[in-house]
Amino acid sequence: MGSLMHLIPVTDPADPRLAAYTSIREKDLTSGHGGRFIVEGKVTLETLLTRSRFAVESLFLAESRLAPLADLLAKVPADVPVYTAPQDIMDQVAGFPMHRGVLACGLKGDIPLPGEFISEDKPRSGPLLLLSDISNHDNTGACFRNAAAFGAGGLLLDERCCDPLYRKAIRVSSGASLFLPYAHGGTGLDMVNAVLNAGYTVWAMTPRAEAQPMQSLPVPDKLAILLGAEGPGLPDALIAAAEPVRIPMSAGFDSINVATAGAIALAHVFGEKQG
Amino acid sequence: MGSLMHLIPVTDPADPRLAAYTSIREKDLTSGHGGRFIVEGKVTLETLLTRSRFAVESLFLAESRLAPLADLLAKVPADVPVYTAPQDIMDQVAGFPMHRGVLACGLKGDIPLPGEFISEDKPRSGPLLLLSDISNHDNTGACFRNAAAFGAGGLLLDERCCDPLYRKAIRVSSGASLFLPYAHGGTGLDMVNAVLNAGYTVWAMTPRAEAQPMQSLPVPDKLAILLGAEGPGLPDALIAAAEPVRIPMSAGFDSINVATAGAIALAHVFGEKQG
Repeated sequence: MGSLMHLIPVTDPADPRLAAYTSIREKDLTSGHGGRFIVEGKVTLETLLTRSRFAVESLFLAESRLAPLADLLAKVPADVPVYTAPQDIMDQVAGFPMHRGVLACGLKGDIPLPGEFISEDKPRSGPLLLLSDISNHDNTGACFRNAAAFGAGGLLLDERCCDPLYRKAIRVSSGASLFLPYAHGGTGLDMVNAVLNAGYTVWAMTPRAEAQPMQSLPVPDKLAILLGAEGPGLPDALIAAAEPVRIPMSAGFDSINVATAGAIALAHVFGEKQG
Repeated sequence: MGSLMHLIPVTDPADPRLAAYTSIREKDLTSGHGGRFIVEGKVTLETLLTRSRFAVESLFLAESRLAPLADLLAKVPADVPVYTAPQDIMDQVAGFPMHRGVLACGLKGDIPLPGEFISEDKPRSGPLLLLSDISNHDNTGACFRNAAAFGAGGLLLDERCCDPLYRKAIRVSSGASLFLPYAHGGTGLDMVNAVLNAGYTVWAMTPRAEAQPMQSLPVPDKLAILLGAEGPGLPDALIAAAEPVRIPMSAGFDSINVATAGAIALAHVFGEKQG
């Protein structure tokens, strides 16, 4: 164990220094004051410590996890407190059994709006993934995971999307929401227009019959892939602003999960660019 | 409401005729005696009544759902009892709030083994999806949903896979596990060998570098796509028996969900066959 690590044993589940970790199942930390988020488990902690865009505020570990995680903990900055407690105290703080025994709290900082993100003078390789009205944490997390797997340059989320830094979204993203650049806020149409104005082609993914089959289209150099809510799909106004594109599917059952649709489009584009 | 429907009001949550519906959250009906499964929600009930492979044993509906579902309920066979109860009685039976107010119980019957399935003298269009050691209900359900969306001819599951007729697997499948033909049981190697012996090419999906990129391969007429457990991936013996195939991914993050990997492979094959 590095001697620099700032280890703080805690014995009282009501210790105010653990406030960020209390009752984390129900709590919505990210939208409250302070803009904190919770990371759980070893893999995501490793992402937070090694390739995250965000600052780490503290760690909270079950005592039994200190030895097995020694190598990883050597990467914790010396000024970041590492609270430790017996498993039962940790469970009481979290409000449910925290079997993994690994929690950390990050600081969200400022997340740009899609228009700000696009106008940044940064070269971005890979397509952008645009999400409109994706309010399910699993779907948001899966979209980030898939975007990372297929080399997307970033994600834009409109105001109707849930926060990709929700605990469950981070977990489902396999940590991708901690390192992939993203923007969040404003209307779907503002988002699409910002991307169009920056010279992107926007593929509005929709099962509608009048949409072009994805495989029939050349893949533009600057491509944005737009996904909408799973039930209703993208609203007409967003489809009309973009290029309607469909994934060919079986006639009797044209229903796939929205994150899966995004993965199929991203994988197709990635494969075309490699080929 | 069709006058033929066999409507049975129930007022006692302990009524033995509702035994199949008690405490359904925890219960594993499918592997027990009797081989029943539970369907919940309108969309899945419609699948059960209109395109399922399975017999319906009974329905259990909140009273308030009778009128809105009248058209669908007209399709219930006259000899199938339809139990109805006030919402609070239904909640007590199910063991948790059954907001949708729609449950049905189906009979599983005999599910063939993969070897039996393959030796059936039936023409099957579309690729087969082979699952080895997929024990997560969400992943199993998603695999069925994706298989239906991309015209798979059926699914083979080895003995280490969970039952696709678990309540949650059916729901996540959007009902596809009720109508897609499938087989379940035996070892992964028996499953792969049965398919190879029947003249199929088996693509073992793996991120390993030595695997061929999917897009570089011709799509065989008789194709089986083999997926393994998400964490460890396919065991060496199954990869060695088949053709290792990979989905090209970003070098720094080659991790996608197993059902998503299956969807990408199925969508690619479907697109090639359409094109």
